[in-house]
Amino acid sequence: MTKSGRENSGSAGSRGAPVRGTAVSQAGEFGLIERIRSLFPEPPSDVVRGIGDDVAVLRMPPGDLLLATCDCQIEGVHFLRHHILPRDLGRRAAAINLSDMAAMGGDPLWAVVSLMLPGDLPVDYVEDLYRGMGDALGEWGAFVVGGNTARHPDRLVVDVTLLGRAAPDRLITRDGARPGDVLMVTGTLGGSRAGLEWILSKVPSADEAVRDRAVRRHRTPRARVAEGKALAATGRVRAMLDVSDGLLGDLAHLCRAGRVGAVVEAAAVPVDPCCRETARAKGRDPLDWALRGGEDYELLFAVDPDGVEHVIRTLRGVSDVPCSVIGRIVSEKEGIQVVYPDGSRRNAASEGGWDHFGPRP
Amino acid sequence: MTKSGRENSGSAGSRGAPVRGTAVSQAGEFGLIERIRSLFPEPPSDVVRGIGDDVAVLRMPPGDLLLATCDCQIEGVHFLRHHILPRDLGRRAAAINLSDMAAMGGDPLWAVVSLMLPGDLPVDYVEDLYRGMGDALGEWGAFVVGGNTARHPDRLVVDVTLLGRAAPDRLITRDGARPGDVLMVTGTLGGSRAGLEWILSKVPSADEAVRDRAVRRHRTPRARVAEGKALAATGRVRAMLDVSDGLLGDLAHLCRAGRVGAVVEAAAVPVDPCCRETARAKGRDPLDWALRGGEDYELLFAVDPDGVEHVIRTLRGVSDVPCSVIGRIVSEKEGIQVVYPDGSRRNAASEGGWDHFGPRP
Repeated sequence: MTKSGRENSGSAGSRGAPVRGTAVSQAGEFGLIERIRSLFPEPPSDVVRGIGDDVAVLRMPPGDLLLATCDCQIEGVHFLRHHILPRDLGRRAAAINLSDMAAMGGDPLWAVVSLMLPGDLPVDYVEDLYRGMGDALGEWGAFVVGGNTARHPDRLVVDVTLLGRAAPDRLITRDGARPGDVLMVTGTLGGSRAGLEWILSKVPSADEAVRDRAVRRHRTPRARVAEGKALAATGRVRAMLDVSDGLLGDLAHLCRAGRVGAVVEAAAVPVDPCCRETARAKGRDPLDWALRGGEDYELLFAVDPDGVEHVIRTLRGVSDVPCSVIGRIVSEKEGIQVVYPDGSRRNAASEGGWDHFGPRP
Repeated sequence: MTKSGRENSGSAGSRGAPVRGTAVSQAGEFGLIERIRSLFPEPPSDVVRGIGDDVAVLRMPPGDLLLATCDCQIEGVHFLRHHILPRDLGRRAAAINLSDMAAMGGDPLWAVVSLMLPGDLPVDYVEDLYRGMGDALGEWGAFVVGGNTARHPDRLVVDVTLLGRAAPDRLITRDGARPGDVLMVTGTLGGSRAGLEWILSKVPSADEAVRDRAVRRHRTPRARVAEGKALAATGRVRAMLDVSDGLLGDLAHLCRAGRVGAVVEAAAVPVDPCCRETARAKGRDPLDWALRGGEDYELLFAVDPDGVEHVIRTLRGVSDVPCSVIGRIVSEKEGIQVVYPDGSRRNAASEGGWDHFGPRP
């Protein structure tokens, strides 16, 4: 970030900060950028140039690998504007990227934000969006360092590119699983799918605590950054990714990348209590939501069988988030099987998870 | 990039590459990613993981600063789908980012592409889009290393984040201009504005060469990467940015950042011949288009007065693109003035250039 005192006080072409309630079309691009800059504290010295320049200039720690990932939130596809507060939308837009970073065992550092805005959106809304991104990034010491704002005729789009780092010997990718590895997952599953149900339809249940937890799981997932880093540091995790497309969908990615198969014990899948209660109230199968619901942003990983105890102990040391052994890695020709409590088996290869271009639920 | 042989031949969940003419909704997200991967050669060894993983893993040259910039192209705002070929759109989406990198004197390295697509868009279209990005990036040895694809209900959006590097002593920012510096610009101006005129309206002129040049200047600008790096290496350029918002608009950014003013000699502004002819045919002022048109993607820079000859000689050594002295930097209190051929002066501070949220032309 250039010294804020310099650019704020420049007289040539300066318009001053827009007042509350202003729409972005009235504030103008540069008024908007001024407002966004003023939200954030001075970044640390590794940010040579931040918000306000066309290009962010960053000092990369020597020896580390650079990680880069991006993911967007499109109004009407990933969220409905009247169903989520702007600050929560900002948190979510950051969290889905933090989650990808976590799944590599990476350290998030800097975010570049591409914002596409209808002209009538209030500047206050945009500020809250950035505050939310700042909340989620700041928890891990990461910063918004720049980006771009553009007018979108009718939809709000928040596209975040997150940069981070990992030591070369700490990087976990999705393709290292071997037959015999133990399959594990952090946290609980299906809560996000349950939250979507509460947001989009009526659930015949009076339990507000269930609703609140489910909606929170959906709207503001918390990326498992500390867990991902701790898992990478154990040296026992052979493959990892985050559960964004649904457990079975992401497991299929892990299996395809590693040329392995997997057996999932349905009874061991940690179904979120709010998923269980919501699904039952709607006459749906909670296990199905946990296996295929998506957007839980937990970590799915394959562990060297001799390292399972060490991994569980390590996770307990850094986090209250539980972890579960849910199955094992087998040979590729066995495919992906789900073993149900009644002993029946189903091949899950064709059931998949979330496809962004597939049919809508 | 993970070994392509591994992921392509994985049996679990693999759908094979979609055939020509398929829409993205039929190919599915993973079929689409396979197709995109197969378009590009194996990247160099600094790309540890590229297209196909959620996170790109990159090896940053030690000692260099990391540069990050993003800019998007939104259908209906920045382009009309039936007025530009997908390959040209890809070139343009890369070029506007390469231009920002060029203006810092940076070396482009890697692009992360966030693509938002209507489900009925043909896969061939998406392939051509990536080919175009590959064309423009490949000219400078840069690569697409990853990104994200998402469904957009009704518009195509191409959002590119470009990463690059610069040696700490070679970085040029926008804020270093001092009174007495000489103001220069590469190439010619107004050509892009003229191209827009040909694309959006009828121009009463039969000169196809004028039309072709104008339309090319608008659709597929060529970023001045070699020129930017050469300028940074002279050690004589004190501030630089690219002309995306119009000469006067970008000059206002440069003046605000450096707390200086500027005098522009209108007669010295290099009006593109195709701008001159198109504007005259339409009864418009070509100088106005050159000063305010925007999207020319030339470099505007302030040079230490003792270094002007060296700068001109250096540019001639690396590029056929002409450069022009168009004015000088003055004190902040003098504002930004344009001196017209008849000797009259106008203060340009309030005239500005392109504001993404301002009124449409």
